[in-house]
Amino acid sequence: MFDAGSIIAPTLLIDETICRSNIERMQAKADRFGVQLIPHFKTHQSAEVGQWFRDSGTNAITVSSLSMASFFAENGWDDITVAFPANIRESDTINALAGKIRLRIFILSAETTAHLASVLTNPVEYYIEIDTGYQRTGVPHDDHALIASVISSASRSGNLKFAGFYTHDGNTYDVTGREAIMRIHNGTRTKLAALRNRYASEYPGVRISLGDTPGCSVADDLSGLDEIRPGNYVYYDVTQTVIGSCQYNQIGVALAAPVVARHENRLELVIYGGGVHLSKDSVSINGKTIYGLPVDVRNGRWSEPLDGCHIRKLSQEHGILKVTREVFDRYAVGDIIGILPVHSCMTMDLMRFNGKIMIVT
Amino acid sequence: MFDAGSIIAPTLLIDETICRSNIERMQAKADRFGVQLIPHFKTHQSAEVGQWFRDSGTNAITVSSLSMASFFAENGWDDITVAFPANIRESDTINALAGKIRLRIFILSAETTAHLASVLTNPVEYYIEIDTGYQRTGVPHDDHALIASVISSASRSGNLKFAGFYTHDGNTYDVTGREAIMRIHNGTRTKLAALRNRYASEYPGVRISLGDTPGCSVADDLSGLDEIRPGNYVYYDVTQTVIGSCQYNQIGVALAAPVVARHENRLELVIYGGGVHLSKDSVSINGKTIYGLPVDVRNGRWSEPLDGCHIRKLSQEHGILKVTREVFDRYAVGDIIGILPVHSCMTMDLMRFNGKIMIVT
Repeated sequence: MFDAGSIIAPTLLIDETICRSNIERMQAKADRFGVQLIPHFKTHQSAEVGQWFRDSGTNAITVSSLSMASFFAENGWDDITVAFPANIRESDTINALAGKIRLRIFILSAETTAHLASVLTNPVEYYIEIDTGYQRTGVPHDDHALIASVISSASRSGNLKFAGFYTHDGNTYDVTGREAIMRIHNGTRTKLAALRNRYASEYPGVRISLGDTPGCSVADDLSGLDEIRPGNYVYYDVTQTVIGSCQYNQIGVALAAPVVARHENRLELVIYGGGVHLSKDSVSINGKTIYGLPVDVRNGRWSEPLDGCHIRKLSQEHGILKVTREVFDRYAVGDIIGILPVHSCMTMDLMRFNGKIMIVT
Repeated sequence: MFDAGSIIAPTLLIDETICRSNIERMQAKADRFGVQLIPHFKTHQSAEVGQWFRDSGTNAITVSSLSMASFFAENGWDDITVAFPANIRESDTINALAGKIRLRIFILSAETTAHLASVLTNPVEYYIEIDTGYQRTGVPHDDHALIASVISSASRSGNLKFAGFYTHDGNTYDVTGREAIMRIHNGTRTKLAALRNRYASEYPGVRISLGDTPGCSVADDLSGLDEIRPGNYVYYDVTQTVIGSCQYNQIGVALAAPVVARHENRLELVIYGGGVHLSKDSVSINGKTIYGLPVDVRNGRWSEPLDGCHIRKLSQEHGILKVTREVFDRYAVGDIIGILPVHSCMTMDLMRFNGKIMIVT
């Protein structure tokens, strides 16, 4: 039972019903096209939320660090992909983990494969991360010389098995609307499919894998892909709503924060809830830089965003909310107001340590 | 002894020599003018770094949350100010802490004093937070009706003692250069002094207190103030350097991060070190948005910022560094590069949980 009185400081509310529905919707879509969904767990980093995925049929997961991989391995997950360029300084950790679970990693260079080949004593599967245009990390999709040199260098080790190609299509975060997302998403799928065709005869079973929530959320058809690895969709957030990946009523987390001050002359509420709770991520809506959207909280659930209200600034512990007259008058010092986060992965990462987490069933 | 080999993942290096020098410089300035320095400990949140302050004569500290206050109370600090609008939902915590240490809090409204007056059984000193123009929180400096109503409401409790007026002069963060900082700083001092004059006859011993690192760093003369409460100066950071509060060689922390990928066509290095390590705070330098400045790390110490290099983007775990040809050629996958953080308070808050901290003596 939800107890509003127990909230005395910033508390992240997780709506189990919304999250399970988000999990099931993506799983159903993947199943429909025979695509393996290997959800990214960096968004929640929670053993309990992980169980909700297991209940929907998840048996392989993605994480972004070896420490997350170790955490989930201890929680019974035995097929984990670390979706981050393999860090050769952590070779011993990679090798130890690979002795316990099915471990998959990302490799981008022949130097990395050469180093790993020399130290691994346990089998590891690797994907070559491919850059189809995002320009964060990855081998350019048409750099066949580099791809060949990575594979050739890895082949010197009996413990490095080539699994396929992966792309994080981060460009989908820079556009809005289904059409723009799909243009990027389809371009990436075409490039990945071309790579699979090129290498399939020599490496039968080579897989293509793709990871962003916007593309996986709006695509009606996933056929041709072997795997998808979105993560943010379990919670979604304001950014995803602005992009067009979800509706506000699909956002599964809200920060419950006490009002600590009111400034009537500028219609602002100050909350105990700042950059160490929400993160400093911002998004632009109608030309305004926004750090979160206020909602009413009732019985642990929350409303749609309050019209005309937003967080205009965050300090370390303060959030400054621009609100309407009507909202200003409704909130007294000591009341709890909710905030939909701009970037739920970052908020979750912070709230694990700087606040409380409350799952609302 | 510093062991570079022990760094396998993002590690925050703290240079004890630089930090102690920063601590001593500010203490010497405060002592010169008979001003009490009550340093803000939110920047480091560390018992060990706290000891360096104690070694320089600190006996009263400032924090930004009751959980930080409890942490430092457990570490032997017995005079703690919580520099955040008192949150009436935490009244029980305030009261319990006030039973153990000398506790000072901030109050901005008569509702808050009325509530606290009704529940406190232990003595608490309070400052009225004053807004001299920053417009984050605080009673407008000329709103004497509100100031009077806060004091009058508090006076109903024998446990609430009026201590004085406090201002966080956050506007100094929006300017650059000594002259611009001093214009804001002096304006605030004048307004606080006027308040002290007005209330001193009725409340003898009423103090004026001021809290920002830029103002306290560049001011040559602190006379007339009773207290200063800067915190960031123990570490400083890129933002403070851009503002003009410090030189690069006074920055006391750097993130040591492994290089995990190199992209020669765009002269970029990718590090294991992202938003969950540095925070997403950015600063503008020469029109570029910058998330950190690369430095060479040798024996646990670091160079000045590498000319022409900066972090252009942060993901959750990735940092993307634009570098020069010369720097690109010097760094191989697996090497450690240093990053001066944009905002050291936020970086420190994250690194307590998402990485390792290494004090270099």
